[in-house]
Amino acid sequence: MTGAPRLPAAARAICSGDRRALARAITAIENGDPDAGPILRSLYARTRQVPIVGFAGPLGVGKSSLINLLVSHLRSVARTVAVIAVDPSSPFSGGSVLGDRIRFEARANDAGVFFRSMASRGAAGGVAAATLEASRLLDAAGFDVVLVETVGSGQVDVAIREIASTRVVVLVPHLGDEVQTLKAGLFEIADVFCVNKIDLPGADTARRDLAELVGLAPAAGRWTPRIVGTSTTVPSGIADLWGAIEAHESFLDSSGTRRTGERQRLTAEIVGLVRDRLGRELTRELENDPDLRRLLDRVVAREIDPRTAADRLRNAVRRSR
Amino acid sequence: MTGAPRLPAAARAICSGDRRALARAITAIENGDPDAGPILRSLYARTRQVPIVGFAGPLGVGKSSLINLLVSHLRSVARTVAVIAVDPSSPFSGGSVLGDRIRFEARANDAGVFFRSMASRGAAGGVAAATLEASRLLDAAGFDVVLVETVGSGQVDVAIREIASTRVVVLVPHLGDEVQTLKAGLFEIADVFCVNKIDLPGADTARRDLAELVGLAPAAGRWTPRIVGTSTTVPSGIADLWGAIEAHESFLDSSGTRRTGERQRLTAEIVGLVRDRLGRELTRELENDPDLRRLLDRVVAREIDPRTAADRLRNAVRRSR
Repeated sequence: MTGAPRLPAAARAICSGDRRALARAITAIENGDPDAGPILRSLYARTRQVPIVGFAGPLGVGKSSLINLLVSHLRSVARTVAVIAVDPSSPFSGGSVLGDRIRFEARANDAGVFFRSMASRGAAGGVAAATLEASRLLDAAGFDVVLVETVGSGQVDVAIREIASTRVVVLVPHLGDEVQTLKAGLFEIADVFCVNKIDLPGADTARRDLAELVGLAPAAGRWTPRIVGTSTTVPSGIADLWGAIEAHESFLDSSGTRRTGERQRLTAEIVGLVRDRLGRELTRELENDPDLRRLLDRVVAREIDPRTAADRLRNAVRRSR
Repeated sequence: MTGAPRLPAAARAICSGDRRALARAITAIENGDPDAGPILRSLYARTRQVPIVGFAGPLGVGKSSLINLLVSHLRSVARTVAVIAVDPSSPFSGGSVLGDRIRFEARANDAGVFFRSMASRGAAGGVAAATLEASRLLDAAGFDVVLVETVGSGQVDVAIREIASTRVVVLVPHLGDEVQTLKAGLFEIADVFCVNKIDLPGADTARRDLAELVGLAPAAGRWTPRIVGTSTTVPSGIADLWGAIEAHESFLDSSGTRRTGERQRLTAEIVGLVRDRLGRELTRELENDPDLRRLLDRVVAREIDPRTAADRLRNAVRRSR
């Protein structure tokens, strides 16, 4: 009942390893192009919930180099891997992502690696939703692991939180200010802490500070974030990093957390799609529907305020339950 | 019929110049606290559509210093002014905004200046919506001008585009890469270009490059962006900058663009409020309503895909029109 014979041509091409078809479908997702719909719909049943590993952390901590080495490690243990570099602050792919793209082109002859940068352009639900849909295509296309790197500093955690099954927060020694950042949001999303550049002075202190922070969180029945030290100049710790990620992925299965997490992610995704669609419909109707135009006229005239108008609009469009 | 006798106490306090009441109400908006509702609803009729001037531009171009000098200029011509510093990349106010806050505390004794940093925390519709609502309070409180500075680099243009009546894009000489940035989004939102640090070499080239870009845009019946040079080290050009902003504000009135812009902003605001409320309702219902839970179960089981589920959910909740 997976309906293989009914797959659209583009979906068949993606499943048979056609990289151009895959890239075109991701562009369609990115642009909010309706062509993406049939492909996503037909391939969803083929997804296997492969690990989606998100990397967050301040600029300059070396996320890209780390991911580059992690890709090499995964290839050395015969895993195929796709990398998505997301720039939530830019409506355009390319730009700051370009450097990575060039680096990854060095791997163009390895069919076991796929690299893609993504931006928010016209994607329904924004770049996080588009990245999640692209990850599903990569899953259906047979990649064993999807790595997601957030480029730039805008709303890093949001995208990673919504789509990754394992979240890696990358930091460097001399946490000082970083500890503040952690408290401000990154800390609570981390499944794995990666202290990169452990060859720099202060690495031991950084790991100790992190271990102390991790120790503050309640642990019973919950995952205790792992702390890993890595270096990308004299490559070290990369296998440990992957080991910590795999340990978290195993925990997701053994604890049943993968099921609940998946359910929450799907809820957020479906609600996001409905919310965006209703938003587009309502915008059109406030411009065209006579009753709703009058409602807007009264707000413009300062007779009713926007919040009151929103309450009325909600009641006008919502089926009573 | 403005209903002055029915104003809630907090709204009355705000109108009578009580700074603490104003600050508390803005915090309530920021936190998505329901207390903000009655205040906003009651004060909306008192808003006068004062200029909301948004400042966008890359990090390090000197937006904060420029705004500081603009505040001094406005006070010297007897205008009262409120400044909102928005950090869309942070869920917390403070942090990078702290420096500004300290600087503006020097003006704590001047009742004609109000400074506030804002973050997205729990605000309905995000930080842009919260900033728009805060601007209305500042308008109702009697401030003549609201200046909005976006701190950090995340989704700068979005917040400014949605709420400002005049958008100032601040740049520095040696545009090179900046011209790329402009093409990538800032250019199309600029009503005024401010080339700051004109004492640096390359300022003339930068202005010429900008003038060329501005010349490419069609001009008939439309506003042609002004280009102003400023310096904050040896203060110069600040009065010119304000002159360019005022010229754009006059154009908005004379051309009728203020009315259409206001209508579009209100549409986006009302739709955003409804969309967010429906999103919260649907999230709750997917967790609790038996029919919707079954729909989600089928998505989890890979029997139907998220986009198809979203279509069904939309049809289930939307009143047919």
